[in-house]
Amino acid sequence: MQEQIKKLLQAIQQGKVTVEEGMEQLKELPFKDLGFAKVDNHRALRQNHPEVIFCQGKTPQQIKEIVGYLAKNSNNILASRASLEAYEAIKEVCPEAEYHALARMVVVNRKPLQLNKGTILVVSAGTADLPVAEEAAITAEIMGNRVERLYDVGVAGLHRLLAHLDKLRKANVLVVVAGMEGALASVVGGLVSRPVIAVPTSVGYGANFHGLSALLCMLNSCAAGVGVVNIDNGFGAGRLAAIINEDAR
Amino acid sequence: MQEQIKKLLQAIQQGKVTVEEGMEQLKELPFKDLGFAKVDNHRALRQNHPEVIFCQGKTPQQIKEIVGYLAKNSNNILASRASLEAYEAIKEVCPEAEYHALARMVVVNRKPLQLNKGTILVVSAGTADLPVAEEAAITAEIMGNRVERLYDVGVAGLHRLLAHLDKLRKANVLVVVAGMEGALASVVGGLVSRPVIAVPTSVGYGANFHGLSALLCMLNSCAAGVGVVNIDNGFGAGRLAAIINEDAR
Amino acid sequence: MQEQIKKLLQAIQQGKVTVEEGMEQLKELPFKDLGFAKVDNHRALRQNHPEVIFCQGKTPQQIKEIVGYLAKNSNNILASRASLEAYEAIKEVCPEAEYHALARMVVVNRKPLQLNKGTILVVSAGTADLPVAEEAAITAEIMGNRVERLYDVGVAGLHRLLAHLDKLRKANVLVVVAGMEGALASVVGGLVSRPVIAVPTSVGYGANFHGLSALLCMLNSCAAGVGVVNIDNGFGAGRLAAIINEDAR
Amino acid sequence: MQEQIKKLLQAIQQGKVTVEEGMEQLKELPFKDLGFAKVDNHRALRQNHPEVIFCQGKTPQQIKEIVGYLAKNSNNILASRASLEAYEAIKEVCPEAEYHALARMVVVNRKPLQLNKGTILVVSAGTADLPVAEEAAITAEIMGNRVERLYDVGVAGLHRLLAHLDKLRKANVLVVVAGMEGALASVVGGLVSRPVIAVPTSVGYGANFHGLSALLCMLNSCAAGVGVVNIDNGFGAGRLAAIINEDAR
Amino acid sequence: MQEQIKKLLQAIQQGKVTVEEGMEQLKELPFKDLGFAKVDNHRALRQNHPEVIFCQGKTPQQIKEIVGYLAKNSNNILASRASLEAYEAIKEVCPEAEYHALARMVVVNRKPLQLNKGTILVVSAGTADLPVAEEAAITAEIMGNRVERLYDVGVAGLHRLLAHLDKLRKANVLVVVAGMEGALASVVGGLVSRPVIAVPTSVGYGANFHGLSALLCMLNSCAAGVGVVNIDNGFGAGRLAAIINEDAR
Amino acid sequence: MQEQIKKLLQAIQQGKVTVEEGMEQLKELPFKDLGFAKVDNHRALRQNHPEVIFCQGKTPQQIKEIVGYLAKNSNNILASRASLEAYEAIKEVCPEAEYHALARMVVVNRKPLQLNKGTILVVSAGTADLPVAEEAAITAEIMGNRVERLYDVGVAGLHRLLAHLDKLRKANVLVVVAGMEGALASVVGGLVSRPVIAVPTSVGYGANFHGLSALLCMLNSCAAGVGVVNIDNGFGAGRLAAIINEDAR
Amino acid sequence: MQEQIKKLLQAIQQGKVTVEEGMEQLKELPFKDLGFAKVDNHRALRQNHPEVIFCQGKTPQQIKEIVGYLAKNSNNILASRASLEAYEAIKEVCPEAEYHALARMVVVNRKPLQLNKGTILVVSAGTADLPVAEEAAITAEIMGNRVERLYDVGVAGLHRLLAHLDKLRKANVLVVVAGMEGALASVVGGLVSRPVIAVPTSVGYGANFHGLSALLCMLNSCAAGVGVVNIDNGFGAGRLAAIINEDAR
Amino acid sequence: MQEQIKKLLQAIQQGKVTVEEGMEQLKELPFKDLGFAKVDNHRALRQNHPEVIFCQGKTPQQIKEIVGYLAKNSNNILASRASLEAYEAIKEVCPEAEYHALARMVVVNRKPLQLNKGTILVVSAGTADLPVAEEAAITAEIMGNRVERLYDVGVAGLHRLLAHLDKLRKANVLVVVAGMEGALASVVGGLVSRPVIAVPTSVGYGANFHGLSALLCMLNSCAAGVGVVNIDNGFGAGRLAAIINEDAR
Repeated sequence: MQEQIKKLLQAIQQGKVTVEEGMEQLKELPFKDLGFAKVDNHRALRQNHPEVIFCQGKTPQQIKEIVGYLAKNSNNILASRASLEAYEAIKEVCPEAEYHALARMVVVNRKPLQLNKGTILVVSAGTADLPVAEEAAITAEIMGNRVERLYDVGVAGLHRLLAHLDKLRKANVLVVVAGMEGALASVVGGLVSRPVIAVPTSVGYGANFHGLSALLCMLNSCAAGVGVVNIDNGFGAGRLAAIINEDAR
Repeated sequence: MQEQIKKLLQAIQQGKVTVEEGMEQLKELPFKDLGFAKVDNHRALRQNHPEVIFCQGKTPQQIKEIVGYLAKNSNNILASRASLEAYEAIKEVCPEAEYHALARMVVVNRKPLQLNKGTILVVSAGTADLPVAEEAAITAEIMGNRVERLYDVGVAGLHRLLAHLDKLRKANVLVVVAGMEGALASVVGGLVSRPVIAVPTSVGYGANFHGLSALLCMLNSCAAGVGVVNIDNGFGAGRLAAIINEDAR
Repeated sequence: MQEQIKKLLQAIQQGKVTVEEGMEQLKELPFKDLGFAKVDNHRALRQNHPEVIFCQGKTPQQIKEIVGYLAKNSNNILASRASLEAYEAIKEVCPEAEYHALARMVVVNRKPLQLNKGTILVVSAGTADLPVAEEAAITAEIMGNRVERLYDVGVAGLHRLLAHLDKLRKANVLVVVAGMEGALASVVGGLVSRPVIAVPTSVGYGANFHGLSALLCMLNSCAAGVGVVNIDNGFGAGRLAAIINEDAR
Repeated sequence: MQEQIKKLLQAIQQGKVTVEEGMEQLKELPFKDLGFAKVDNHRALRQNHPEVIFCQGKTPQQIKEIVGYLAKNSNNILASRASLEAYEAIKEVCPEAEYHALARMVVVNRKPLQLNKGTILVVSAGTADLPVAEEAAITAEIMGNRVERLYDVGVAGLHRLLAHLDKLRKANVLVVVAGMEGALASVVGGLVSRPVIAVPTSVGYGANFHGLSALLCMLNSCAAGVGVVNIDNGFGAGRLAAIINEDAR
Repeated sequence: MQEQIKKLLQAIQQGKVTVEEGMEQLKELPFKDLGFAKVDNHRALRQNHPEVIFCQGKTPQQIKEIVGYLAKNSNNILASRASLEAYEAIKEVCPEAEYHALARMVVVNRKPLQLNKGTILVVSAGTADLPVAEEAAITAEIMGNRVERLYDVGVAGLHRLLAHLDKLRKANVLVVVAGMEGALASVVGGLVSRPVIAVPTSVGYGANFHGLSALLCMLNSCAAGVGVVNIDNGFGAGRLAAIINEDAR
Repeated sequence: MQEQIKKLLQAIQQGKVTVEEGMEQLKELPFKDLGFAKVDNHRALRQNHPEVIFCQGKTPQQIKEIVGYLAKNSNNILASRASLEAYEAIKEVCPEAEYHALARMVVVNRKPLQLNKGTILVVSAGTADLPVAEEAAITAEIMGNRVERLYDVGVAGLHRLLAHLDKLRKANVLVVVAGMEGALASVVGGLVSRPVIAVPTSVGYGANFHGLSALLCMLNSCAAGVGVVNIDNGFGAGRLAAIINEDAR
Repeated sequence: MQEQIKKLLQAIQQGKVTVEEGMEQLKELPFKDLGFAKVDNHRALRQNHPEVIFCQGKTPQQIKEIVGYLAKNSNNILASRASLEAYEAIKEVCPEAEYHALARMVVVNRKPLQLNKGTILVVSAGTADLPVAEEAAITAEIMGNRVERLYDVGVAGLHRLLAHLDKLRKANVLVVVAGMEGALASVVGGLVSRPVIAVPTSVGYGANFHGLSALLCMLNSCAAGVGVVNIDNGFGAGRLAAIINEDAR
Repeated sequence: MQEQIKKLLQAIQQGKVTVEEGMEQLKELPFKDLGFAKVDNHRALRQNHPEVIFCQGKTPQQIKEIVGYLAKNSNNILASRASLEAYEAIKEVCPEAEYHALARMVVVNRKPLQLNKGTILVVSAGTADLPVAEEAAITAEIMGNRVERLYDVGVAGLHRLLAHLDKLRKANVLVVVAGMEGALASVVGGLVSRPVIAVPTSVGYGANFHGLSALLCMLNSCAAGVGVVNIDNGFGAGRLAAIINEDAR
């Protein structure tokens, strides 16, 4: 595209194309060819980020093909919501892939990123929240972060959480994963002064309404500094935490 | 009624009434006259409980009339959701009435009940929750309970709550009042081993949805021993706490 | 930890550590090590309560491991939402475990608690509500309570309920379990003067919306003295009833 | 229109129009002109029913004009949700109009209908439900029904309701009006064997959600023979009860 | 029970039992035996109504036992939401039972009731609504009603419905069954002057939200004379229609 | 019916039937026979539209029978939400049927319609939206439209969408298919000046609530010219687009 | 901007700026200035469309300023949701503005557009729906369309609607406005073969939930060819109808 | 407290208190006195943060008192949701207070913080979103951040947003404020690689349901790196953005 504009300007310079014709041609250039190199190159700048595949609803065969394609161009790949079958299909085209069963994630980490300075702490309330917590932790790790875990510290047993006050306070970014009433995000948010990414989970039953109770609780947190992602969206929380943890410009 | 049946049986015994006629007459006795003396007298047994009027949606004139009527038969009266106008109307027929502006309650406590042994502790999260908290506290007081208050101890400043751990642990029944995310009920529930009555309030905005977030949070509490009442229902919580606090049979 | 503090104080006593250094070291001790003996020991005081496992979402193998661990330290164990497979896994590590199929509960009751004085009455509306009702009843029993059952007394056949008025009135705490419209809690609440724990169930279809109708009905009960727990939360209701039924302090 | 068809058939008879042309013309007649005399005349048959105006959202001036128009053709008129201002505007064009302040209804009953045989009983739970209950009662009355009222018999004081069992059982159709938890419909439905029209009201607060709790409760009624109308729709309930109470064909 | 009271009265008459003993014995009779003969006998009066079992959530074995028990005392039995397996279990104890596969109903009609005078018309919108429509129709039939069916007349093809205007107008009670937008109830309600029982079905997808759209549509019907039952509650609609269709008292 | 009216008019012409008798007979003809030829013939005018079967909830056998019947009268048939089994059943009676696996559609296109002038562009956000997008595209095609596809152009990668600005601007009607947040409809609606039919899909999880998020997003679109259909209703969108794309009258 | 580019190209032509410098300057121009002439000019093409202001939430003063600004560049202006005060403020800067009180719209139509060929028919159910219907009608008119109105034809009085079948069938686009149950859209959609834009209104009460019932009803319409806009969005419906009614490209 | 411990340790040192007694006394100290200096001092570390008052629901008098109290200890104060009356009351005790009418905020900025390195960009969709956007911007500013604003760049006019691509890309943290469909967050999230804080607003009507549509849209954003706060919570967004923008530890 650059070339195309260059040729046009040269033609104007050389008098082969009039100014009026030139303006007409500029208008006709497709949108992307003008401005959107600009749009796209921010991806290039961040090229070390892994390529991501959301496997839910895709067949192992489809996943295998997508990973096969990506593996040619990317060093690092992250497949979320991946079944064991999906993993086995992936291994055929990408033998170095590793499977994290609890998080249901497949990780290809050929060229690990240099670690960011701060630590990301993933805190979770109950054992049933672990898959989402691990999804967040692994996502943050492959994006170049030191991740610590603080699991099974629900608010009904406050002393378990408070015993780790130092760990909470040392983290640069916190991801708080909780289902049921989701109160952990508010409690943690009140104890720290760094950003808290809250992840409601669908863990619970009855008036939990598939995570709605935790979601609303977190959105209404009286603690400042809490941002919320979608129910069960461990990946999104891990990614947001990673972006925050990057060195500021 | 007992008399009525007795006479009937005597008449049968004396042959003045045949068995068939007797059966017919038994059927004709109104329902209440048979079984429902029994239904009703449990109220008589508990006659020291105050009579209660829910003022919302009633005119001061209507409230005045109702209180005027009750004041003839009851020692103690509790008018909830009462405006200042309602209070002034009540004073005309019941000069000893007192107004609790914050709780929007009018109290007539002519014959204070003997105090129950245990203490009821009313805990609230934010200042905006105070009207509901006071409604609960005053209700419990007029029903013969020692009530302590622990206000402004929301979970975002956990140390304020934990500084009163002894108070929390000494209470026999706890009423926890919180809006927004309502997480306080879970935290308190995890710190004590006595019953917690949770009252969600409509305090908040946005995804609070008029108290829904606090309600769902409290229903999904991971702490055992928490029972929930309707949004903003301080009266109901105070009453339930009072009933629990009565000496067991 | 106790040891750690003891040594510190001895060192101060012996002049090996100055007062200032001692204060510094006290601050550095992890949170739990200072205050939280105190936080934790309320559990110790109540040590006769059974340990509880919520089995839903755990594999039989996981459940077996947890029970195996708990069985070393606890006399009494309660596993809720347990399938037959879970029970069989538990029996391998804990042969005295009993299975209550209807309530889907496994009970290990090695050292039955002394019975509280009052009676807990579990009332249920329809046969489909029985699993939740039994969950509540069994929970209350293992926590040391005399439990009576009054089942299949839905409000559409009021005479069945009223025939047991004496039983209702004699109970110290009542648990009312109902699905569909959940009206039983209000009716029972109007007949008794002791606390009523209402448990909405997800029994029903259509505009029941998985228990929402019963939940809202119970929260809006016009009867005083009703506290509500989560939909289908028989365990929570049983536990709250048991705590209420303990002798007041 | 009748005339139009008549002329066409006469023209065919007289040979001025061929059969084919006649068929063509029949097709061209507007829809109503062919078949819909038939559609409409069922209204004619029922001409004694009052004309009804829903006043909410209309200005007194608009209401006055509509009533003025109707008053020329109808004997009986019913204006629902009418303010006092609306009533005063109506009186200018219809001096015999009466105002029922509680029900917010204006009634013009120039030619009272002959009474149907059965009785309609309107039952209501609390005093705040009275406007809706009266709306139902007055609607049924103007449609030619004997209406009895049984008010303030909420389920939390069951004995008040049961004291009137005979009245409940004698009614041919029952309208049950209740807010908050709406349990009255189920209880009444279980006591009678005639149709129950349930009207949820928006009376309540918090988790009542403007009548949703009562609505869901009534829709999920475990009692057979209950049909539900919209929240606060006293008019609709009265009308449905009246239609049911008409002598069967 | 009648017998029991009779014997008691005879014993009093014969002097075998004193009046005081008689009163004592009367008190001891369970509630129903005193007052609830009256409560209960309305069922006796209507004894031809079939006994009803809601099979959903019961095992074939349980259903078989219940039917076996009922078959000893009742002439007519109706089992709703019955699978083929349930039917086969029922046949073992009740060989004359018939299965209506579409309606998922088992019918035992040993002593058909005399037919009521009016006709009940069951109208349905789409083929997917047929199971619910048939449930309503069969329920009404076994309760002694002449039932006509008008199926597949959804509002998107209005001419199909209007072609049967006479049938609609001749019916004494109408049951209208519709999913998706549920508009059929309003349209039918506007065409007839007899009661319409509207049954929303869960037929549809997306913003149907399992029948919510049809339910809300029917509750908001601008046609007078429409009562609504729960989503998919064909049985309830059939029963309400049957009760309405009985000759008025 | 035409015949019936013809005979009647002939009889009038021949004097065998008087005008009055003729009018009487016209009234007696069933509704459809008078006016509804007219109602129906708009379908006749549009006879090239395919007959449509919604297969969800029907057995392959039922589908086969319906298609077998339709295949005698219609040239073109469209079966939506059809499984492979349904397709194989259809092929037995209609061997020329084709199966579009992704769209879950069976198409019988014996007599392809002449193409409308404008182009319909189907735009979709993610790969998981493809089945709905294809349902829309295939529906529009069989109804005689030139359809272009622009897939996988979600708003998170805006450059992919903007690269096809010309395609977007050339389309006469656009169908925009998106799940999750459904923002694509607003963005596309802001870029074009022709009608946009927005189809929310149920693709997503958590606070997506089965398509509710995309539905609400699309209904609240700040772009003018957007009409919304039901969640996942690709067929409805394709049909509406096709109707819009027909040449205006 | 055009000027800016022109000058740049002229400078290149005249050799005052090199090609390289020219490219650099092109890149520096704000995005819109390069590519978005193209993005924007589709608005230019449609320049006869009125400028639109949504007045709700703006002060009369703010509205006056905006209109004053627009009035300098646009011939036609449409202000929706405008109060009388807003209108009076507008008149000060734009004396030719007209106020449509019912639709709450201010119209400045200095240069009426040439009329499109087809007719847009706005159909509404009840009188309370008129403001929304008029908003749609006036919007369509100012955008150059022949608009007909068919008001007060709710489905409960079907004959009123059917009497205008010809009008319905002659329309090229239909806008159907209905509150309460919103069934009119389905009925109209079944009678015509042209696009139907359905506008749910918030007219109603109770289970209408501020328009939710009508919205869901319309989204679930079983009639093909219905697109839905937001509740009360008469403007959006009018605009979509106008765009559809434009001659196809 | 420090003193209390000091004295205790000195007493041990001096042999006045034994080690065992010392341990006993340590246990008896209130919770806060031991560990919670530690809990609290993280606030001390961050003491430059302004004190915050949420004014909604407080009287001007109450606000004045709180500010008067805070003004003695804090340099900087932020009062959100403050009316003009509130501001005037504040000025009496704090004359240097400034009022930001649009944001409804009162700011006391006696000792402005040193600016963080990165820039926070606040982006908003429509003019009605400005109060929330300004609330976020002013909050971030008083917390020591360089804030830029990019307003009125809704997705329906994409070119307005894209014209500022450089600004978007240069920001270190972005706050995106949007009502109605809330799509702006996804679009911005797709264009940048830094954290996006999304604030749904309650701007809109109808199916917006007071901000629900924007909230769900943002939670379901397909763009990574988006965290959501409560509806209309500009303050929370500003604060979270400020915390993120602080230099990492």
